[in-house]
Amino acid sequence: MSLLVTGSIAIDSVQTPFGKSDGLLGGSASYFSYAGSFFGPVRLVGAVGPDFPEEFLELLKSRNIDTAGLEVRPNSKTFRWAGTYKGSMNEAVTTDLQLNVLAETPPPIPPDFRDSTFVFLANTSPALQLDLLSQLHAPRMVVADTRDHWITEARDDFLILLKKTTGLVLNDFEAKILTGLDNMVAAGQAILKLGPQFAVIKKGEHGCLLFADSNICALPAYPTSKVKDPTGAGDCFAGGMMGYLASADAVDFPALTKSLGFATVLASFAIEDFSLNRLKQISLDDINDRLEKFRTLSSF
Amino acid sequence: MSLLVTGSIAIDSVQTPFGKSDGLLGGSASYFSYAGSFFGPVRLVGAVGPDFPEEFLELLKSRNIDTAGLEVRPNSKTFRWAGTYKGSMNEAVTTDLQLNVLAETPPPIPPDFRDSTFVFLANTSPALQLDLLSQLHAPRMVVADTRDHWITEARDDFLILLKKTTGLVLNDFEAKILTGLDNMVAAGQAILKLGPQFAVIKKGEHGCLLFADSNICALPAYPTSKVKDPTGAGDCFAGGMMGYLASADAVDFPALTKSLGFATVLASFAIEDFSLNRLKQISLDDINDRLEKFRTLSSF
Repeated sequence: MSLLVTGSIAIDSVQTPFGKSDGLLGGSASYFSYAGSFFGPVRLVGAVGPDFPEEFLELLKSRNIDTAGLEVRPNSKTFRWAGTYKGSMNEAVTTDLQLNVLAETPPPIPPDFRDSTFVFLANTSPALQLDLLSQLHAPRMVVADTRDHWITEARDDFLILLKKTTGLVLNDFEAKILTGLDNMVAAGQAILKLGPQFAVIKKGEHGCLLFADSNICALPAYPTSKVKDPTGAGDCFAGGMMGYLASADAVDFPALTKSLGFATVLASFAIEDFSLNRLKQISLDDINDRLEKFRTLSSF
Repeated sequence: MSLLVTGSIAIDSVQTPFGKSDGLLGGSASYFSYAGSFFGPVRLVGAVGPDFPEEFLELLKSRNIDTAGLEVRPNSKTFRWAGTYKGSMNEAVTTDLQLNVLAETPPPIPPDFRDSTFVFLANTSPALQLDLLSQLHAPRMVVADTRDHWITEARDDFLILLKKTTGLVLNDFEAKILTGLDNMVAAGQAILKLGPQFAVIKKGEHGCLLFADSNICALPAYPTSKVKDPTGAGDCFAGGMMGYLASADAVDFPALTKSLGFATVLASFAIEDFSLNRLKQISLDDINDRLEKFRTLSSF
């Protein structure tokens, strides 16, 4: 099994009630690949500019992350995002956005990566996600992320994408926009009728819901008051989920539910500090320890 | 062990996206006692007027509910509430409120009920909850419910009450108002410093959190798209919780976590129809079956 992620690589500036930090490694593909790399190798496809710090590249390379698909474009600039979180920190307010390399033709999937079996298409335009998907030979599991903008502004493409993906990962607000339904159980079941074999609705501090055929799994979030920066939590969630699935080489419902346990744990670590700072301090043992703790405190 | 509830008994009119129903049996003590009666006897203390339908009285009496503490006041009227739920139905908009008997001197706890060991003080003014509490001999577990109004308008009394209760049950909005904290884990831990040995934060469709000493339990809600009327869900939750605890005669943390499983299941049945209509159709076997299903679909 081989795990591939396509997505953004960013330089972030983040402000939360607990501080402000600039020049951070960010982007969906960075978070996903780092979280996934605890479980096995991850192939990364993305693009940056020459302003991308060497230390970030070294950090990714120091992990189980194959950066052969990471293009450094000499005449471009790295995607930059700045955001502020307030109150319950459920949503960031974007204070600056410089698309830079993200506005250009995206990098192709390298020939050596096209046999990948587990694929995560991080949030970008559905047309681009479809193009990336078409470059793959015969993936066993393709999971797409998205955001509200694409559901409303590129709905036709998005609906085509849904018919070609194994799973969709999205948050509760996006699920509501996609289905028009307020009840998240009804929404999850409605999403399955649009194509994917499974759907995961992420509810941030309220946990997640998994839908597959007539099966449902409902998990709380890992209860923590240590929330310093929620940026990338959703991508670490997806990285933990697919990292585990790829390492187990499994796509059945019990494996999916267990992958959500790991997903929850990875997200819970990620939010404890800015960028990947907390994930840099932990090992797979720490992840397994917290998984067992999570199992205990969500049992009755 | 003996379980006592003090609270309101109402005649409700409820409108939801799924219909409108008038002349319904409502009130916190009605919901609590009916839910609790699946597990064992419940002693009910409350007051109504002569307009209280005989069939409602018969319904309560047909259960394990001792109505010796239910006063029918000839010169008063039953409390009436009308409300409308929209969208995700998380909160009702009150369209009519007639306090009637609730505005009068509350009924005393009958002498035969004063030895109760498990006590639920449903939502009312903290001063009244303190008065009721003072009438009890030596309860083993006293759990109070409240609402935002009392936390802001009768805060001093409420803080005195907290020092005299074993447990507090409240929703996430109330927890935020009480503690000033957005993070519900931090809020739950802060509540314990105010006196109670445990606190349960109810999050509706997002489940609940239990805090006791340094222990935490986090459960999702029972995932269901069958939500017809959420009125009384919180009281059925508390009834399931304390009904189980009283029947098990236990107050330790494992018992508390299991009681939340039953609480979640009772609430999930209650919301499937107006008033107590769904609870009237089920047995303890149905409750145990759903508890096992809940355990399965929240495992990973």
